[in-house]
Amino acid sequence: MSRHASKATLKTLAQELELSITTVSRALKDGPEVRPETIARVKQAAARLGYAPDRSAVNLRTGRTGTIAVLFFVPHAYDDVGDGSITAIIEGVCRRLEGLDYTPVVQLLTLEVDGLERVRRIVEGKLADGIILSGTTPQDERVRWMLERRFPFVTFGRTELFTPHPWYDVDNELAAHQATAHALSEGRRRVALINPPETLTFARQRLAGYRRALAEAGIAYDPALVVHGGLGAGESREATRALCAGEDPPSAIVCATGVVAIGACAGLRDRGLEPGRDVLVVSRDGTRMASYLEPPLPTCFASLSDTGWHLADFLMRALDGAPVEDLQMLVETTLVPGDRR
Amino acid sequence: MSRHASKATLKTLAQELELSITTVSRALKDGPEVRPETIARVKQAAARLGYAPDRSAVNLRTGRTGTIAVLFFVPHAYDDVGDGSITAIIEGVCRRLEGLDYTPVVQLLTLEVDGLERVRRIVEGKLADGIILSGTTPQDERVRWMLERRFPFVTFGRTELFTPHPWYDVDNELAAHQATAHALSEGRRRVALINPPETLTFARQRLAGYRRALAEAGIAYDPALVVHGGLGAGESREATRALCAGEDPPSAIVCATGVVAIGACAGLRDRGLEPGRDVLVVSRDGTRMASYLEPPLPTCFASLSDTGWHLADFLMRALDGAPVEDLQMLVETTLVPGDRR
Repeated sequence: MSRHASKATLKTLAQELELSITTVSRALKDGPEVRPETIARVKQAAARLGYAPDRSAVNLRTGRTGTIAVLFFVPHAYDDVGDGSITAIIEGVCRRLEGLDYTPVVQLLTLEVDGLERVRRIVEGKLADGIILSGTTPQDERVRWMLERRFPFVTFGRTELFTPHPWYDVDNELAAHQATAHALSEGRRRVALINPPETLTFARQRLAGYRRALAEAGIAYDPALVVHGGLGAGESREATRALCAGEDPPSAIVCATGVVAIGACAGLRDRGLEPGRDVLVVSRDGTRMASYLEPPLPTCFASLSDTGWHLADFLMRALDGAPVEDLQMLVETTLVPGDRR
Repeated sequence: MSRHASKATLKTLAQELELSITTVSRALKDGPEVRPETIARVKQAAARLGYAPDRSAVNLRTGRTGTIAVLFFVPHAYDDVGDGSITAIIEGVCRRLEGLDYTPVVQLLTLEVDGLERVRRIVEGKLADGIILSGTTPQDERVRWMLERRFPFVTFGRTELFTPHPWYDVDNELAAHQATAHALSEGRRRVALINPPETLTFARQRLAGYRRALAEAGIAYDPALVVHGGLGAGESREATRALCAGEDPPSAIVCATGVVAIGACAGLRDRGLEPGRDVLVVSRDGTRMASYLEPPLPTCFASLSDTGWHLADFLMRALDGAPVEDLQMLVETTLVPGDRR
C-alpha cells in the first residue's frame, strides 16, 4: 500500500475546466471577482471529482481545526478488565456538539502517561481548537502550561492553581461523606476506603469527606482502613483481600469508582465473605453498572454522560469568550440505594 | 480566553538573536551553510523560549502526522452502562507503538455514526498516517473508499470485498459454535442467541456457528430463540425479558459481548430466574470482566489487548509496504469455564 492518497487537487480541477488555478481557488470561495456561472461550474466539478481542500492547508490559513481533543485519564494500570467511563463521557460530549462542525478525538492518559507532552503537541501543532482534560492534580503542570499559552481548555476536576480556569467537577468530598454516612447509618462501624493515588486532587477530597463522616459519628480515624492506589478491578480485588486478611475485616468498603466496586466484590468472595451481607460495598459511579450487579450496590451517582455534555458546553463557551467564572461547576452526587433496580 | 496561543515563532527567535529568519530556520535544520556556533546558539534559544515548529506546517512539508486514527465501533445505543472494550484495545495499540513516534487517537462510531464522513476527513485532511477501523460490514463502503485512495488501514473484522486488505479478526463463527456446543454439552437444549444487528459481518458469522452447533446435535433451528439488535446492557436485558416472557424460556443464552451478558443476567433476575442455575449465560469477551461477576460466567475469550497489538502491528507493517497477504489473521477464542476464577 502507498502512503499517498490520489485525489483531485486545485491543479487537476483547473486542468479539467481549462481555467487558471487562481480562478478555481477564488470560485470555491465565492470570490466576487469570478462570474456566478463559473462559480457554479467549478463547484459542480469539485463535487463530481471529489475535491476537498487539504485540511492541513485549511488549518494554516484559518487557524481552526474542527477538532476537540479529549485527554481522558484512566486511573489504573491495565488489568484486563475494561473501563467504560470513556464511552459515557464521549456520548455526552457528542450530544453537546451535535450539529456543530466539531469532532471529539480521544487520547487515553494513564498513571504512566501524564499528558504534558500530549498537550504540548496538540497546542503547538494546532491539532485541536480546545482540550478537555481529566485527572487533575493540585498543581497541575499541564493546566499551568495551557494557562500560560492562553489555550482554550476545560478540566474535569479542580486544581489549586491561583489563576482561575474553566472546570467541571463532581463533589467528591460530598460523595465520600455520603457513602461513609450511608454505611454508618446501616450500623457498619468499621468502614474502609479504597481511594485513588494521593497525587490526584480527588483523592484528597474523598479522604476529607470520609474523615468528616467518621468524626460526625464519633469514630476514630484508622489509617489501616484506608488504601491509596491504582483503581483497576484487579488492584481493588487485591486491596480488598489484604483488608480482609486479619481477624477483624471491615464491615463496609467505600469505593472510588464502579470498577473498584466490582473488584472489591470479587475480593470479598475470595475471602468467603458475601458482599452486601457480610461487608457492605458502596460504589461511586457515573454509569448504571452497579444496578446490573448481584447484589445491586448502593452507589453515589453523578451522570458521566451529563459530565461530558457540560465539559463540551464549557469549552464551546470558552471559545466564544465567556468569562471564566461562568465556566466552573460543582455537581452533587445522589445516593442510589442498592435495592432499587 | 483567547483562541490564539502566544508562543515563540521563527520571527521572534530571529529578533531575539538578531539573525535573519532564513538563518534561524536553516540552523534549526542543521543547514551546512550555517556556522556550528550559530546553530548551537539558535538551538539553545529555541529550547529556552519554547519554540516548536507548527505541526500543520510540518505536516504539509513531510506528509507525516505521527497520528494513528482508531475508529472504534460501539455496537449499541448509549444506555448509561459503559463499554470497556476501548480501553483494552488501546492498551494493546499503545504497547505496539511504544518507542515509536505515533500517538493513537480515538473516535467512537455508533449505529448512528457510520464513519464514512470521519474517514474522508482524516484521509483528505491528512490528519493521520493510517486508520484502524472496527465494526465492518460485508460490503463496507468505508473500506472500499480507503482502498480506492490507497490509504493505509487495517480493519478489526473482515469484509466480503473482492480486493484484499489488511484485517485482524476473532473467529466469531467458531466462538458462537463453541458457546452453543458448551451449553448443549451441559444438557441445555433450548439455546437462545443474542446477536448484533444483521448488517454487521460478525452477526452473520455468529449465526452460522450457532446453527452449525445445533445441527450437529440434531436440534431444529428455532428463529424465535434468536434476537438481532443493539448490544447495550439495557437492550440485552429487555431482549432477555422478552425471551423469558412465555411458559417455555430458554435454558441457555449465548451472548455476543460481555456487556450483553451482564444485561442478560439482569433480565433473568427480573423474571425470577437465576443465571447459571435456571438459565446458563455464556459470554463472549476480550476482557476478564465475566470472571468478576457472580456467578462467574463461562466465556469465549480472545484478548482485546492482543487484538489492539496486532491491529497496530499490521498497520505499522502496511506503512512499511508489507504484502497484504501477510497482514490478515484470524484468531480462535478459548472457552473459559465459569467456575474458574
